[in-house]
Amino acid sequence: MPSSRTDAIDPVTFAQDLIRCPSVTPAEGGALDLLQSVLEDMGFVCHRLPFEEDGTDPVDNLYARLGTASPNLCFAGHTDVVPVGRAQGESGGWTVDPFAATVQDGMLIGRGASDMKGAIAAWVGAISSRLQDAGPVPGSISLLITGDEEGPSINGTKKMLPALAELGETIDHCITGEPTNPAELGTMMKIGRRGSLNGYITVEGIQGHTGYPHLADNAAHRLSKMLASLVDWRIDEGSDHFEPSVLSVTQIDVDNAATNVIPAQGTARFNIRFNDLHTSASLEQKIRDRLTEAAGPGANFSLDIVVSGESFLTPPGLLSDLLTDACTAVTGHKPDLSTTGGTSDSRFIKDYCPVVDFGLVGKTMHQVDERVATADIVALTAIYRHVIDAYFKKAAA
Amino acid sequence: MPSSRTDAIDPVTFAQDLIRCPSVTPAEGGALDLLQSVLEDMGFVCHRLPFEEDGTDPVDNLYARLGTASPNLCFAGHTDVVPVGRAQGESGGWTVDPFAATVQDGMLIGRGASDMKGAIAAWVGAISSRLQDAGPVPGSISLLITGDEEGPSINGTKKMLPALAELGETIDHCITGEPTNPAELGTMMKIGRRGSLNGYITVEGIQGHTGYPHLADNAAHRLSKMLASLVDWRIDEGSDHFEPSVLSVTQIDVDNAATNVIPAQGTARFNIRFNDLHTSASLEQKIRDRLTEAAGPGANFSLDIVVSGESFLTPPGLLSDLLTDACTAVTGHKPDLSTTGGTSDSRFIKDYCPVVDFGLVGKTMHQVDERVATADIVALTAIYRHVIDAYFKKAAA
Ligand SMILES: [Zn+2]
Ligand SMILES: [Zn+2]
Repeated sequence: MPSSRTDAIDPVTFAQDLIRCPSVTPAEGGALDLLQSVLEDMGFVCHRLPFEEDGTDPVDNLYARLGTASPNLCFAGHTDVVPVGRAQGESGGWTVDPFAATVQDGMLIGRGASDMKGAIAAWVGAISSRLQDAGPVPGSISLLITGDEEGPSINGTKKMLPALAELGETIDHCITGEPTNPAELGTMMKIGRRGSLNGYITVEGIQGHTGYPHLADNAAHRLSKMLASLVDWRIDEGSDHFEPSVLSVTQIDVDNAATNVIPAQGTARFNIRFNDLHTSASLEQKIRDRLTEAAGPGANFSLDIVVSGESFLTPPGLLSDLLTDACTAVTGHKPDLSTTGGTSDSRFIKDYCPVVDFGLVGKTMHQVDERVATADIVALTAIYRHVIDAYFKKAAA
Repeated sequence: MPSSRTDAIDPVTFAQDLIRCPSVTPAEGGALDLLQSVLEDMGFVCHRLPFEEDGTDPVDNLYARLGTASPNLCFAGHTDVVPVGRAQGESGGWTVDPFAATVQDGMLIGRGASDMKGAIAAWVGAISSRLQDAGPVPGSISLLITGDEEGPSINGTKKMLPALAELGETIDHCITGEPTNPAELGTMMKIGRRGSLNGYITVEGIQGHTGYPHLADNAAHRLSKMLASLVDWRIDEGSDHFEPSVLSVTQIDVDNAATNVIPAQGTARFNIRFNDLHTSASLEQKIRDRLTEAAGPGANFSLDIVVSGESFLTPPGLLSDLLTDACTAVTGHKPDLSTTGGTSDSRFIKDYCPVVDFGLVGKTMHQVDERVATADIVALTAIYRHVIDAYFKKAAA
């Protein structure tokens, strides 16, 4: 047994210990140190990977691996948390100290309880119980933990992955511990995400007088037609695992104080959340064609596209099957394979290996009195344990 | 002969005398006093009609009538002028003193030469020559002269007309001396004007996140569709004497700093120049219906309409016939009966009697080195004389 501990780690207690580290991005707050010491006690080899870059806060990160053989099943997560928001004592503020990790009526209350110190503790608890009950896995188990997920996400997972590849590390499959369940544990995992881009339109016309519009080129007219064309656009009907792509015009500006002046310039901004039927490049061409047609002959406009992230999908397979079996066994629910909602660090990981997000219930994440049921932490530990056992049983077979 | 003068008034000299009065709105500058003294010398009975109102400059005005019988043929005009703009000596400024009334190469140069002291002088010259050659008219000749045409037009013609009606004055026909000829004297009169209104749209939606547009009501989307519907609107095909009505979107504002936020509010402004197929009230109903349909079900928007002026037409008839005959006789041109271009005080006069605008060449009005040919002042005097003779010949018949 590589562990020097005699009892399996209690995930609820460990989640409390982690919450008591005030690791608001970019502060490490003792959380990575605590995690590293527990993992090292279990036999993990740990690498700290701090990164910094001009104009950003330096961030500390941790990669820990137990075993050297393949396959390497990884858990990705973050110890950083969002700010507390309204403090305890303020109207509408926390009812408890957000870093006290209070347990009340079966709920663990504290910043990071759901997003995502509870899931980290469950993963560590699952490994610990596995080692106690059934010994080492035929392969490797690892953790990829960043301190920069809730911040700009520049000095975290995005930089760790190429750095680890450089060191010769290979990850075969990854579970990201984000809180994916809307209300009840075991009901939803995320197998992909929509992409997101922002478009910036500038139309240049020719100023004129409203009495003589034929002598002018009204930028507001061109822009109105272009935007109406975007608004009317049914981009697609959705795909097997994605809802239809959606476009939102988010800003319009045609500034002009005089009521009798035809405006020469207009700008607008829009956002598209797009599914796996598109790349940002294929969409950009469609947008450009559409705007050109709507703007009409002789239009002078520019379009700038800024891509926040490409869409991605981990097609249903090994990871989703294992999680489905585990959720069914532990909770009785068959989880949805969803691609909705906000982004996670899986958008970086998907370039290296199959990745699925599954964690606790996210209902209170980022809110005042963030909380999870202690029973859910215990159940998630059982689900992760189920996945680990089945994954390596398959690997050994 | 009611006149105490022995020679007919020279219209070019009199135009110079008027230009030398620096009557930039709202200053009287001596122009009304000079005009009144010349008219009183000719036997006119003069009324000064000063008006003021909270928040506006007080303005002096003049109504002068020669004779008491019907019909009363009136000349409407203004002695006020627009500011000089770039002064003499500045780059791109006047090449002469704008109030010196310099004659160079046959051109009278000065502020108000074209708009419209030259035309006032021509009308006075025409009356003077008529009185010298053929004696008094069988009816009355009058002048309705304001000092507030180039300013807000609140304390001028608009207030004079009801005040004169109150005094029992009746005007039967009116010629407004605005510079109506684009490039050559005798080529264009104006028999009406388009109306003008401004519309103000405010759309209220529900803010949201671009990841979940179905939970929001995007004000930018509603507004884009509403504006595109206005832009696409072919309001009419024009009428017998008017070009098609035209709409210009002049301002749009959907303010929103965040790229992932769906905006809850948007505003826009538009202007419509409309012909005699519409009133502002009939148009407002059409606009409202159109916007309601384009905004779609459940839309929450407001529309405010501010009317600058209704459209009007003095149908071709006595005045336009007399002016056409006079132009043809004096210049060899048959003038167009136009309804294009900016507004004039005729928009107030049309509620009292038929009114047509005809004056000098307007090419340089409101510009630096405003100028008219002295020959044009002489020719306009002949045209006005022709009209006066024919009008009263008809009246006497
Ligand atoms: Zn998170
Ligand atoms: Zn004028």
